[in-house]
Amino acid sequence: MTQIARLKTTDPDFDTRLDDLLAWESVSDTGVKQTVDEIIAAIRAQGDAALIDYTARFDRWQPRDASALALDPTRLSEALAHIPAAQREALETAAARIRSYAEHQRMEGWEFVDGDGTRLGQKVTPLDRVGLYVPGGKAAYPSSVLMNAIPAKVAGVSELVMVVPTPQGELNELVLAAAAIAGVDRAFAIGGAQAVAALAYGTERVPACDKIVGPGNIYVATAKRAVFGQVGIDMVAGPSEILILCDGETDPDWIAMDLFSQAEHDEDAQSILIAWDADYLERVAASIERLLPQMERSAIIATALNDRGALILARDEDEAAAVANRIAPEHLELSVAEPEALAAKIRHAGAIFMGRYTAEALGDYCAGPNHVLPTSRTARFSSPLGVYDFQKRSSLIQASAAGAAALAGTASTLARGEGLTAHARSAEYRGPEHEA
Amino acid sequence: MTQIARLKTTDPDFDTRLDDLLAWESVSDTGVKQTVDEIIAAIRAQGDAALIDYTARFDRWQPRDASALALDPTRLSEALAHIPAAQREALETAAARIRSYAEHQRMEGWEFVDGDGTRLGQKVTPLDRVGLYVPGGKAAYPSSVLMNAIPAKVAGVSELVMVVPTPQGELNELVLAAAAIAGVDRAFAIGGAQAVAALAYGTERVPACDKIVGPGNIYVATAKRAVFGQVGIDMVAGPSEILILCDGETDPDWIAMDLFSQAEHDEDAQSILIAWDADYLERVAASIERLLPQMERSAIIATALNDRGALILARDEDEAAAVANRIAPEHLELSVAEPEALAAKIRHAGAIFMGRYTAEALGDYCAGPNHVLPTSRTARFSSPLGVYDFQKRSSLIQASAAGAAALAGTASTLARGEGLTAHARSAEYRGPEHEA
Repeated sequence: MTQIARLKTTDPDFDTRLDDLLAWESVSDTGVKQTVDEIIAAIRAQGDAALIDYTARFDRWQPRDASALALDPTRLSEALAHIPAAQREALETAAARIRSYAEHQRMEGWEFVDGDGTRLGQKVTPLDRVGLYVPGGKAAYPSSVLMNAIPAKVAGVSELVMVVPTPQGELNELVLAAAAIAGVDRAFAIGGAQAVAALAYGTERVPACDKIVGPGNIYVATAKRAVFGQVGIDMVAGPSEILILCDGETDPDWIAMDLFSQAEHDEDAQSILIAWDADYLERVAASIERLLPQMERSAIIATALNDRGALILARDEDEAAAVANRIAPEHLELSVAEPEALAAKIRHAGAIFMGRYTAEALGDYCAGPNHVLPTSRTARFSSPLGVYDFQKRSSLIQASAAGAAALAGTASTLARGEGLTAHARSAEYRGPEHEA
Repeated sequence: MTQIARLKTTDPDFDTRLDDLLAWESVSDTGVKQTVDEIIAAIRAQGDAALIDYTARFDRWQPRDASALALDPTRLSEALAHIPAAQREALETAAARIRSYAEHQRMEGWEFVDGDGTRLGQKVTPLDRVGLYVPGGKAAYPSSVLMNAIPAKVAGVSELVMVVPTPQGELNELVLAAAAIAGVDRAFAIGGAQAVAALAYGTERVPACDKIVGPGNIYVATAKRAVFGQVGIDMVAGPSEILILCDGETDPDWIAMDLFSQAEHDEDAQSILIAWDADYLERVAASIERLLPQMERSAIIATALNDRGALILARDEDEAAAVANRIAPEHLELSVAEPEALAAKIRHAGAIFMGRYTAEALGDYCAGPNHVLPTSRTARFSSPLGVYDFQKRSSLIQASAAGAAALAGTASTLARGEGLTAHARSAEYRGPEHEA
């Protein structure tokens, strides 16, 4: 029997119970932080030598020298050539769809000319070099390689550098094949905080990157936070979540399985269903009981559902949408007859899966949009990973002589109001009096 | 005599000297971090009561109760009504130009339908509530209020909450007037780490925000870093910088004053000129010597130029552009006859000021583009503050029955390859076999 929480929006303590359910604070372990700081300092000071030492110690294989840290480029294409055809086809189909969606996201520059002949604009450029962290061992997800690498290449990043730890020298062929498909330019068999430090600061062998993306364990996440500023990073993700809003007309087995698909990630994952039909919630609960024992990862699913899941009864669809906006979920399924009308009421969500046929799992792998999404209510202020994360903007200003003269007075008045007279005089040099 | 560094790209140690010159690491002071953590914990635990205590202690005035922390909305419009007409006009001119530029940045959603009838898209929504930190006292810059607030309002942020400390109860009328013009919705007379904590977590009186932007001292910056994740934040800025590339034909007094305009911000500011004409560098050096004693902030300027400034001789324009890309400056002036050709070679810069008439000071106040820009080489991976920082994206996926059936096989194959069978089964429920 799962003990998934049952909440009603009419409960007097609903707000508090929901807050408790959603609460997630990544504990910043002082021990981890200190270890990571030491690793970063060692990589900065000793470069490849430290990288070899840490790899031997943490990944339990001994690189014979620094050149052994690099993966031969042909290694990726060989993996692609040797994986089963069905997997290769699935990876290529997914990659094509991810690329097609990403191409819609590419930002373009623009400019305009004002009445005084001053040109104003925005120039868009790709990042030069990006590092992609890929976890090794069991949690190696080829889909994550596609999702992180393809937007970078669509943005025009010239060099995409993958790092992947090889515990006891073991490589995941699907990960390498995905890297080949996604267009990874260079790869290194390193991982952990030492790989993040190498990507951020560079070593003799590993080139310094401008941004580091990709998931990792607590050491990787802590290292990414530590090097932020030196390089850009993507969001540090919390546990994965799904929120489903259902009108009570979807097959309850489908909804149960969608809840499982999040819960199977790990014990901290969060699966929540909101419906405005009490009987339907019971039918989903019955599906959960029936299907759970069939699942390969039933223990993980049960823990996640018991500790962080919920079945919530709302008064109606509008109230369900209001609760969804409060939760600001990573994944939001709108399993209703008219998903467009409901989607119009949603202000905060990483990805919205509309209609009964749009299982979140389709989005996780191959629908096209990215599966790297804001977690832990950060969809209130942040966005899915996209091409725009690998592009940046520069403002362009080109004042004509007339334009500079027109602006000089305003700039000078404001600069003097702030006590910055060099600013004022710099503007005044281009002003009308100086001209005359 | 200033002792501004002279470098030549042909010097054997040029790379090292340039790296040393650019090196900037914000020292993370453990004492500051600990104080900030305590303040955040107190605000979270005690709310307004702690806010009143800290305000009395740090800002040296005693709020009679929590209501005294809020600024009356009429206070802003009164300030606007009472400032000198020239300043009001300058603020309004600047605001109109900043707004006009920002409107070009607004992102719009999009969608498309694939061959199987699956709709894919991206929905764009504004942030609900944004907190704007404005420093009090001497470093109170009304231009920063405009630059931070206007993009948020153009994005459609419904509630913009300003906090501004009032040391010994003193308010800056220009800051309040700028807030009125920019459309700030609510304002509080609080500052420091306690104001950041209040904006991040909310108190009885101060509403919790989704993002916090705006400059501040080391306590404010440390607090913003600490609450990042709970809320979004803008970049934590380093010292301001200007890099000027000049072909030797601009009045050297103009260039000297442009270098001063950065250097006068503070002793850590960085002003660098690159030219490919050794005589011209000497003429600028002479202008610096002649003009410096006239400057109100000559001591600050001299320290900044001596400690962090440089006059660099390059071989030619192309080499100067390459050095500029290595520096990735916050502000880049292209003081040359053909700025467009040179701008095409620039990959990394926060803002590019093109041609001899485009003084950086014009951009600081009123050209239109934002003056909140990436510092300390972060233009390699980040962008000026803009409307897009106050919008976020949600992915939209609406699979048709046929589309879901087409995607199910791919998703299932990839999910099983990753050992995630609930994902696979969730996709398969929508697949062709299940349909039949």
